[in-house]
Amino acid sequence: MSPFRSVTSGVQGAASTFTNAALQVLNGAVHPWKVARVMGRLVMRPVHRPGTPPGALTYTGAREAADVRIRLLEYDAEALREEELSSVTEALPIRDSSPVGWLNVDGLHDPEILREIRDHFGLHMLLMEDVASVGQRAKLDDYEDSIFLSLPMLSFHRESMTLEVEQLSLILGPAWVLTFQERVGDVFDPVRERLRSAHGRIRSRGADYLVYALMDAVVDRYFHILEQFGDAAEEMEGRLIQDPTPETLLGVNHLKRELLVFRKSVWPLREAVGAFSRTESSLVSEATQVFARDVHDHVIQVIDTVETLRDLASGMSDLYLSSVAQRTNEVMKVLTLMASIFIPLTFVAGVYGMNFEFMPELEFRWAYPAVLTFMLAAGGSMLWYFKKRKWI
Amino acid sequence: MSPFRSVTSGVQGAASTFTNAALQVLNGAVHPWKVARVMGRLVMRPVHRPGTPPGALTYTGAREAADVRIRLLEYDAEALREEELSSVTEALPIRDSSPVGWLNVDGLHDPEILREIRDHFGLHMLLMEDVASVGQRAKLDDYEDSIFLSLPMLSFHRESMTLEVEQLSLILGPAWVLTFQERVGDVFDPVRERLRSAHGRIRSRGADYLVYALMDAVVDRYFHILEQFGDAAEEMEGRLIQDPTPETLLGVNHLKRELLVFRKSVWPLREAVGAFSRTESSLVSEATQVFARDVHDHVIQVIDTVETLRDLASGMSDLYLSSVAQRTNEVMKVLTLMASIFIPLTFVAGVYGMNFEFMPELEFRWAYPAVLTFMLAAGGSMLWYFKKRKWI
Amino acid sequence: MSPFRSVTSGVQGAASTFTNAALQVLNGAVHPWKVARVMGRLVMRPVHRPGTPPGALTYTGAREAADVRIRLLEYDAEALREEELSSVTEALPIRDSSPVGWLNVDGLHDPEILREIRDHFGLHMLLMEDVASVGQRAKLDDYEDSIFLSLPMLSFHRESMTLEVEQLSLILGPAWVLTFQERVGDVFDPVRERLRSAHGRIRSRGADYLVYALMDAVVDRYFHILEQFGDAAEEMEGRLIQDPTPETLLGVNHLKRELLVFRKSVWPLREAVGAFSRTESSLVSEATQVFARDVHDHVIQVIDTVETLRDLASGMSDLYLSSVAQRTNEVMKVLTLMASIFIPLTFVAGVYGMNFEFMPELEFRWAYPAVLTFMLAAGGSMLWYFKKRKWI
Amino acid sequence: MSPFRSVTSGVQGAASTFTNAALQVLNGAVHPWKVARVMGRLVMRPVHRPGTPPGALTYTGAREAADVRIRLLEYDAEALREEELSSVTEALPIRDSSPVGWLNVDGLHDPEILREIRDHFGLHMLLMEDVASVGQRAKLDDYEDSIFLSLPMLSFHRESMTLEVEQLSLILGPAWVLTFQERVGDVFDPVRERLRSAHGRIRSRGADYLVYALMDAVVDRYFHILEQFGDAAEEMEGRLIQDPTPETLLGVNHLKRELLVFRKSVWPLREAVGAFSRTESSLVSEATQVFARDVHDHVIQVIDTVETLRDLASGMSDLYLSSVAQRTNEVMKVLTLMASIFIPLTFVAGVYGMNFEFMPELEFRWAYPAVLTFMLAAGGSMLWYFKKRKWI
Amino acid sequence: MSPFRSVTSGVQGAASTFTNAALQVLNGAVHPWKVARVMGRLVMRPVHRPGTPPGALTYTGAREAADVRIRLLEYDAEALREEELSSVTEALPIRDSSPVGWLNVDGLHDPEILREIRDHFGLHMLLMEDVASVGQRAKLDDYEDSIFLSLPMLSFHRESMTLEVEQLSLILGPAWVLTFQERVGDVFDPVRERLRSAHGRIRSRGADYLVYALMDAVVDRYFHILEQFGDAAEEMEGRLIQDPTPETLLGVNHLKRELLVFRKSVWPLREAVGAFSRTESSLVSEATQVFARDVHDHVIQVIDTVETLRDLASGMSDLYLSSVAQRTNEVMKVLTLMASIFIPLTFVAGVYGMNFEFMPELEFRWAYPAVLTFMLAAGGSMLWYFKKRKWI
Repeated sequence: MSPFRSVTSGVQGAASTFTNAALQVLNGAVHPWKVARVMGRLVMRPVHRPGTPPGALTYTGAREAADVRIRLLEYDAEALREEELSSVTEALPIRDSSPVGWLNVDGLHDPEILREIRDHFGLHMLLMEDVASVGQRAKLDDYEDSIFLSLPMLSFHRESMTLEVEQLSLILGPAWVLTFQERVGDVFDPVRERLRSAHGRIRSRGADYLVYALMDAVVDRYFHILEQFGDAAEEMEGRLIQDPTPETLLGVNHLKRELLVFRKSVWPLREAVGAFSRTESSLVSEATQVFARDVHDHVIQVIDTVETLRDLASGMSDLYLSSVAQRTNEVMKVLTLMASIFIPLTFVAGVYGMNFEFMPELEFRWAYPAVLTFMLAAGGSMLWYFKKRKWI
Repeated sequence: MSPFRSVTSGVQGAASTFTNAALQVLNGAVHPWKVARVMGRLVMRPVHRPGTPPGALTYTGAREAADVRIRLLEYDAEALREEELSSVTEALPIRDSSPVGWLNVDGLHDPEILREIRDHFGLHMLLMEDVASVGQRAKLDDYEDSIFLSLPMLSFHRESMTLEVEQLSLILGPAWVLTFQERVGDVFDPVRERLRSAHGRIRSRGADYLVYALMDAVVDRYFHILEQFGDAAEEMEGRLIQDPTPETLLGVNHLKRELLVFRKSVWPLREAVGAFSRTESSLVSEATQVFARDVHDHVIQVIDTVETLRDLASGMSDLYLSSVAQRTNEVMKVLTLMASIFIPLTFVAGVYGMNFEFMPELEFRWAYPAVLTFMLAAGGSMLWYFKKRKWI
Repeated sequence: MSPFRSVTSGVQGAASTFTNAALQVLNGAVHPWKVARVMGRLVMRPVHRPGTPPGALTYTGAREAADVRIRLLEYDAEALREEELSSVTEALPIRDSSPVGWLNVDGLHDPEILREIRDHFGLHMLLMEDVASVGQRAKLDDYEDSIFLSLPMLSFHRESMTLEVEQLSLILGPAWVLTFQERVGDVFDPVRERLRSAHGRIRSRGADYLVYALMDAVVDRYFHILEQFGDAAEEMEGRLIQDPTPETLLGVNHLKRELLVFRKSVWPLREAVGAFSRTESSLVSEATQVFARDVHDHVIQVIDTVETLRDLASGMSDLYLSSVAQRTNEVMKVLTLMASIFIPLTFVAGVYGMNFEFMPELEFRWAYPAVLTFMLAAGGSMLWYFKKRKWI
Repeated sequence: MSPFRSVTSGVQGAASTFTNAALQVLNGAVHPWKVARVMGRLVMRPVHRPGTPPGALTYTGAREAADVRIRLLEYDAEALREEELSSVTEALPIRDSSPVGWLNVDGLHDPEILREIRDHFGLHMLLMEDVASVGQRAKLDDYEDSIFLSLPMLSFHRESMTLEVEQLSLILGPAWVLTFQERVGDVFDPVRERLRSAHGRIRSRGADYLVYALMDAVVDRYFHILEQFGDAAEEMEGRLIQDPTPETLLGVNHLKRELLVFRKSVWPLREAVGAFSRTESSLVSEATQVFARDVHDHVIQVIDTVETLRDLASGMSDLYLSSVAQRTNEVMKVLTLMASIFIPLTFVAGVYGMNFEFMPELEFRWAYPAVLTFMLAAGGSMLWYFKKRKWI
Repeated sequence: MSPFRSVTSGVQGAASTFTNAALQVLNGAVHPWKVARVMGRLVMRPVHRPGTPPGALTYTGAREAADVRIRLLEYDAEALREEELSSVTEALPIRDSSPVGWLNVDGLHDPEILREIRDHFGLHMLLMEDVASVGQRAKLDDYEDSIFLSLPMLSFHRESMTLEVEQLSLILGPAWVLTFQERVGDVFDPVRERLRSAHGRIRSRGADYLVYALMDAVVDRYFHILEQFGDAAEEMEGRLIQDPTPETLLGVNHLKRELLVFRKSVWPLREAVGAFSRTESSLVSEATQVFARDVHDHVIQVIDTVETLRDLASGMSDLYLSSVAQRTNEVMKVLTLMASIFIPLTFVAGVYGMNFEFMPELEFRWAYPAVLTFMLAAGGSMLWYFKKRKWI
């Protein structure tokens, strides 16, 4: 009868695991640092130590033991060369290569590698600091000879049922694209696939089109996560109506917070992608900007949906409160009914249980049946009164 | 006495079926996928698989078995030719025809047809992708030699009492208009009627005026749906005041969500129609833009009304909560009244029911009437006290 | 003791009739269509049947049996001619007359009359459609050779205590003004009075100044209605503090909704009047625009006040909820007090009412007074405890 | 034990009189027109009777018996002349005087005086109407040869603890400033002082600088009123935490409303002062505009603070509601505790109080102590259970 | 069992001291002026006495006994000279020095020093008044030959667990920077460190870069404070879920208010830093503006996070209210259960405790066991009923 026990009976389905996992986290069954992580995604980490000079290349994310993985992909309409590099220097020729070169770096914890890249491609030191100090707002910075774009890469962590936010950095130069991820990921795989298959349009276009394709792949991910959120919201609403337990409320609260994380991550992207699609930089062709506008539309659609889901979750909280108030009212009615009928009757019984010597009624033969009849009548009229007032 | 039992007595009328159907859905009497569909309209589907190249012509809506229906309508002030085509190629001549040609396609699930149309009319591949991947925000895209406009076509599904959102796509070229619907619908019938009756102004105007007429027909539909929402809101408020049951609250919640769907669909239309009425494209004449401004006004009016209805529905939720709180208070008063009067009296009766041997009062002749009188007085003064405090 | 019974005792005064009438409507004592009308003012009627061609002159308001009344008023600084016309054709000369001509039409249900006017003055068909299809947002449309302005004419219906919204249409031409009202009204009477009295400035100014004077007369009406709302709000707040009954809450809810109607009507007027005061049309002189800015200021002031009243009404709802919660708390305290004191005592009495044969206490002489003393002490210490916790 | 009795024990201090006075008003101890006045400041009075011609000079405020007081102050860097005038005509020479002339009029109820001033200084009739019809939004109107500025002069009425709003009108001409107040006030005294002391910078600057100094004096007053509001808010929050009575809630509500009045008055000032600091009128020098920008900053700061105080007051209402809910919960726990322990025990006692002839237990010697022991054990285990659930 | 007693059991950790200290303040254990200070940071102090002439250099903050500390730092790429000055005059040579000079003043309570600085550097009198009258909004004022920038310096006071807001003023001239702090602080130490270490980029850049470095140091501090807020929020949410006591609510309320202070301080900074990064003043080089844009991004990130934390805290309040409502419901159920089972049974016992002479049942041998059995059955069926309704 604990108010916060974990009830898992009832509605079944894929999404139901969402709520259960969420409840485990919230009920403290799961290790507390998980909750901490939830909060950590909202409060952004300081970009660098107060007062240190700008341009530091210290990675501010969670350091991992894995090696840094560097992959180079050079292509034009005819040919494609793919290579895994052991050091950055091998990639250096691409700078002046006429075909498009794409250098992808997975892992940011080696400042030396970042410094080499920065120096070779002549990148602004603030740009490279933004790559290393992850946890920033999505943004586009135009440094004339290169464009920096940071995107939140979202993924849905099935075990803890929380959003994971990773920062992707894209740098667009005249004929090359640099991409940086915190961990080895698969979000760019479909683009890589399209590059490998020779017949794709993508091979015959420039580096700016590659940036578009990468942005598009990231944004498309959002829709899948939204679908999972939508499923969870649906399932919670079903529960709320059928059996509003405190767990459901905690689930709604968890959902609200994850949506807060989602919104906070995606909101600034609107501006960044919009800037890309309107930039007057010579690095981006007008033909590509038409495609970028499409991504922009999708980002707006994602934001719209997140806001709508937030509205829905708000409505659920209100529904829960009204529902609890209504139930308390029901409980009260039962209590009042029982008490109102039997307390007066008990009083009457008490009166005739008194031990006074001179209580003439006690000796009348018909007194007992009369009192019983009176009690029945009194109880009945009480019932009738409550019926009339629609309490029962 | 179940808190969520389905009461259908009371207020009668056309709109009352709305709430009942809504309640059936919400009470789970109706198959659960209906609820799922409600949510599906809020969370937009991904436009295409992550990473697939842009320009794919895969229909993203619910596939239907029905054939694609293609209708061609060519007209100028003098003549009108109407034809149902079996393949797109038959329509191809219209491209250069001097009279206005209107090609309407019902059903988007055959990518081959879409590709043929795209290639023949020289449409941008993103444009045609937007036609096929339904579930997008309303928008206007200006591709110099053609204008793409997507509109949400709303219809009110009487059985499930929910809004259905379908995407209409309009493409305006120099002397032709292409329209795409997901299913065979009747929204354009009145326009077709006007075209057939030779005396209408519409026959002597260009393709842009046809686009205006089609937009106008779609937007006019919204008003009828608004009226149905208004009726439902009215009826619910009546119930809320006369007999606030949990069902009514669920009905209000359902109404709120349908309004959320409505707003989400229509909100971006404001911008799209506004862009049409201000565009500097040579495809749209200034005379037509005067008419388009009229449609723009209507869209704003629809949005205003949706927002007002949302405000009303919000007020209803608050009213319900206050009302439940008030009723609990009433119930409490009855309980307190009964308990406060009879519990002390029962105590007194209990005292004289004790079996002590030396209770001198018990032997006095006047003791019993005296105690009875005292009890009456005590009960009466309690009543008087509660009366004074306006509890009864 | 019905929770929604109609209590009219207490606060007296002129405004008190407001709430009472509102309650009658809301309690269902008044015919239900009145509530329907309340909603009808929020959900605007469809402008015309879906798909009918634009330019239809069908009146969309509530048709009345009364005749259409046409009044002509021609004036310049020297002379004034006033005439009631039986047909529009008599008015036609005014079109080219050098003095200012003002044609006022009360009643819009005769499309023939509207058509004649449209054709004679060469008005755009959409303009005339806007005149006939009432229930539109306030707006200004500039058709180069004429300016169309629609204004909401508000009046406060004393019996049902609701706002009535009527659409006024003003059309300004080079030397004439056309005005259209749905019913015969008196809002323009003061302007007519000023025209008749030869010494007014208004006689020596052009048609644009007449439009200003008419707008000003309409907007001034709003202030009087605001005052009535303010009185009602005041009275309700007084009631809420002195005696918060559910009726007051319904009254607050009614007030909120009427304010919603008010805001929805007046809000777009701001833009319309602003457009008039900034228009570059040659029909409006700069001197008149100075005056129009004054009207604009007044409209903003009205909107400000409506918003503030809405804030106040919101605060009242919260106050009511807190107040009910507080009262429930008070009731609970009384119940708990009575129960906590007498239930334990009754138990003690019950113990000594048991019929065991071996209860030695029962035979002690001092047992009865001892138990009575103990009961008194127990009850007293309970009281002291509650006193200490500030429950009494 | 009345829920709304006036408790003044507890927190003491200067601000405590605020709440008490507020409560007197709200409890109806003070004459009802005071409440009416509170509302009167929100609902602005109609500027003039509907339909009267513009330019009327009828004072719309509360008429007072006092005489109109006219003070003239002429100065340049060298000399200063101060004079109390009995009629306006004496002031007329100042119009063309090369030194700066400042004419201050206290009292607006004599239309004749206003008319004389208007005619002499050649002011627009709408300008002078705005002076007379007080209760307007703060605004700046630029009439080329003069600038009109209306400011809300706020003062804090200690007895009724409400804000008083008075309209100040400032008119700036080439070398003169006209100021109008509804009543004799002291807000301009410090400026007058600075003018009198010959060494102030103010004497060597033009009329525009005088306007700046006057605005600055008015805005500085706001800060002092804000401090009083801040003190009141603090004190209320202290009460809310230590002893949340309904009076405190009423006090919070009163505070909210006064803040509403404050905001409504000051909000439009931002725009008006901003317009002054950016105006391109030749009447205002750029040097003065630097100072005006300073006033503009202060106005923004005032608005910021009012908004923050409103947020705080909102938080207080929520805190109160939660606190009442919590207290009800506490009360319920006590009741449930008492009832759950003693009602079952009383039942047991009742059983052995029955008068059946064949109840073998009654005759056992150990029965009475056994039952007593059982009762003790039952009560004890109840207590232990509630302890475990943290109810006690 | 006091509703507001201080429970500190449960969750442990660094942040837990936050809430405890907050509760001490709120429970009145700490001296009341601390609460007053909380409010004092929201309601800004009047900038100067109403009516005093502008340009007064009176310090409006809390005066401290400490001396004013003046430090001078002159540097160029080659050399750096650091000096603690006893009077301002010693610093005067820096005005025309070609290397960059940085004069830092800690303590503003000596108007004489401020006046000397103002006169020597030829600063506008309003500028210097803004330095002295602390408690202003963050802002940037461009006085052509110098730029004034005020920043809120936030620090987190561990003992009272409140934000301290101090005003920093930065003045940028052609080759010098003046900084003013209310108290001796350490926020600029890291910048000083970087200047001392000869190899930093900072030494070879101009005065504008120094301003950037100082702004950056201040803004970086915000992130650390945000982290502390985030920890506190996390810990509170944990408590709210595990054991929602009124203390937690007070803690949430305290957190909300501190966030209000935070937002109010930082919000205007966005505009000020934005103005710096876009200014066209010749004092700021374009290269520095690139860096300033970085600070601008950080400020936006801080504001975003504050807003998100406010959303979270709001959600917590709602969660608390729902949770209390739920617990009341639980308590009610227990009460109703006990009462509903035992009150009817007690009545039955009461009936057979009546002393009527003719109660035939009393004499039947099987009557007592029959009644007991009936009681058991009644109680059992009650339990079954409640079980079915899921109350237990």
